[in-house]
Amino acid sequence: MVDDVSGDSSGEGARPGTVLSGAVPIRLFVTGGTFDKEYDELHGTLDFRETHLPQMLEMARSRLHVTIRPLMMVDSLEMTDSDRALIARECRDAEEQHIVITHGTDKMVVTAEVLAEGAAEKTIVLTGAMIPIAFGSSDGLFNLGGALTAVQLLPPGVYIAMNGRVFDWDDVCKNRATGVFEALR
Amino acid sequence: MVDDVSGDSSGEGARPGTVLSGAVPIRLFVTGGTFDKEYDELHGTLDFRETHLPQMLEMARSRLHVTIRPLMMVDSLEMTDSDRALIARECRDAEEQHIVITHGTDKMVVTAEVLAEGAAEKTIVLTGAMIPIAFGSSDGLFNLGGALTAVQLLPPGVYIAMNGRVFDWDDVCKNRATGVFEALR
Amino acid sequence: MVDDVSGDSSGEGARPGTVLSGAVPIRLFVTGGTFDKEYDELHGTLDFRETHLPQMLEMARSRLHVTIRPLMMVDSLEMTDSDRALIARECRDAEEQHIVITHGTDKMVVTAEVLAEGAAEKTIVLTGAMIPIAFGSSDGLFNLGGALTAVQLLPPGVYIAMNGRVFDWDDVCKNRATGVFEALR
Amino acid sequence: MVDDVSGDSSGEGARPGTVLSGAVPIRLFVTGGTFDKEYDELHGTLDFRETHLPQMLEMARSRLHVTIRPLMMVDSLEMTDSDRALIARECRDAEEQHIVITHGTDKMVVTAEVLAEGAAEKTIVLTGAMIPIAFGSSDGLFNLGGALTAVQLLPPGVYIAMNGRVFDWDDVCKNRATGVFEALR
Repeated sequence: MVDDVSGDSSGEGARPGTVLSGAVPIRLFVTGGTFDKEYDELHGTLDFRETHLPQMLEMARSRLHVTIRPLMMVDSLEMTDSDRALIARECRDAEEQHIVITHGTDKMVVTAEVLAEGAAEKTIVLTGAMIPIAFGSSDGLFNLGGALTAVQLLPPGVYIAMNGRVFDWDDVCKNRATGVFEALR
Repeated sequence: MVDDVSGDSSGEGARPGTVLSGAVPIRLFVTGGTFDKEYDELHGTLDFRETHLPQMLEMARSRLHVTIRPLMMVDSLEMTDSDRALIARECRDAEEQHIVITHGTDKMVVTAEVLAEGAAEKTIVLTGAMIPIAFGSSDGLFNLGGALTAVQLLPPGVYIAMNGRVFDWDDVCKNRATGVFEALR
Repeated sequence: MVDDVSGDSSGEGARPGTVLSGAVPIRLFVTGGTFDKEYDELHGTLDFRETHLPQMLEMARSRLHVTIRPLMMVDSLEMTDSDRALIARECRDAEEQHIVITHGTDKMVVTAEVLAEGAAEKTIVLTGAMIPIAFGSSDGLFNLGGALTAVQLLPPGVYIAMNGRVFDWDDVCKNRATGVFEALR
Repeated sequence: MVDDVSGDSSGEGARPGTVLSGAVPIRLFVTGGTFDKEYDELHGTLDFRETHLPQMLEMARSRLHVTIRPLMMVDSLEMTDSDRALIARECRDAEEQHIVITHGTDKMVVTAEVLAEGAAEKTIVLTGAMIPIAFGSSDGLFNLGGALTAVQLLPPGVYIAMNGRVFDWDDVCKNRATGVFEALR
């Protein structure tokens, strides 16, 4: 389940004196969420199968050094404390300093809080989708582009990238009535 | 042709002490490029009609304060010096400090150079697409997410956001053989 | 909720001596089913809103004389005897001799049986979809093309058009394990 | 380039006494046309690569006995007399009595005339698309559903299935101003 989708930029040197860092290795953890939901045509229900992240990076013509690792495939409403402990441990143990996590939107803020307690030296950006990638007209590809850009440009910390915006982990909530992420302050 | 696609966050105050700036107004200039190409079914050719940017921001569930202004609808191979002078003037005259420009990929770097001469106090990010938005499997939504995120997070300057990466205007070229944007240094 | 999506062929006369009948008026009854299911992004569930049939006929560049009338928007597992009585009555009362019905696949055969009891002088074709039209990669447009063609070419009777095939109402069942419609004989 | 996309209904017996014939073997000849055009992202042009027909039949959940054979991949405006002679010969030589041909729309009627001269004992249906399958919102899947249904239900002859209608080969033309196929009589 671990795919290295890294590109061809291995020969590039460091780029001192700039905030840009396209050649930096990025770890992409998949946890499920609406992002990866699919329609089960035999039962008429929504479920999870394989993650769509590799195909999405291909469609995006991404040339980032991204290593994808699915950790779980769950709706965030069903994510447990031990799931979150696993995600935090994987963030700590990853070789990469820059981490993107795809996550269900309903409890994304809860996971961000857990990660903020223990992984402060890394730049971690959580993102998700309101519409499954497998369906028409998903916001997922837009959000993924935003999250992968934010993780390259932001200092260490835990952030949420949704609705085109980037939020500090402690300054965001999901408005359940509208489905939109909003700043608290 | 000018649509205000700004969101609902008018009540948000400034957010001092953070690099994040979701409430900042963004100007989005449309110049055409593959992004907005469509299939003309009567002639079997590719052409331009309306820009797809408003629908893309809607699909993205964007809550940014984005004002879209189409300046022209051309393939960048056909963009003239006077077109570029117009784009530069519009960037200078815009009230917004943060500007994203959709642009054909072939000559995106040329336009970035022109803009870098005259608009240095603003943050300007150019982006584009290898596959038209109107077709299946475009990279455009991913690139737009990256460009809109980069324009919020980067200091003044002119940048290109493509392939998941963000480049300084003077450190990038398009590899014509692969279609990929690469750093020079 | 009643849209006349008929085309521009009003001036065409009858075409004696051929089985073809493109100018014949067709009634299209919508009853829901997977065809018209959508993803509710606030609740993460599947539901019904407006029917997609008018947009489908537009995408299809249909020039048939089709009048669409939604009768209900239900999963066929929840269709009642009185729903079926309503459909049968509408088929009898319709001015058109040629009728297509979009229907959930699980109980399509049950409704076909009810219709076969009372509407034998008309040509009625039921069809549906395994994947919602609103999602990527639906079979719905293919099935609609098949059903609208079958209803023009077949003699009076009740038929089911699925999986590229056309079945007599009393010679078909849905294989629940595979999701495929099969002949009994 | 020859794929057997036939389904799993090999055990089905003949179905005497009905016009329906789902178990009949069908030959599907691919000649190119808008159907199979793709966007060449390096050159910004439209071209042909592999045919999309196998994926379309998969998306359609087709259970027909279809054998696909690409004969050429050309715009019908560039189809030559020898191309048409090849298509006619392949129709004659095919084991199947039921043949569907995907074809560019501009000269579809010309090819139908050539086929009508020499293959009258078989049922041959030509179809095409106004929008490439690879792009969003194509009419191709609808037309394919119509053509595959028509070829099962019609007596020997040469037909064109477009815009939801089925035309005799000698009673149809494409209206170049509207892109719509119309009856002559």
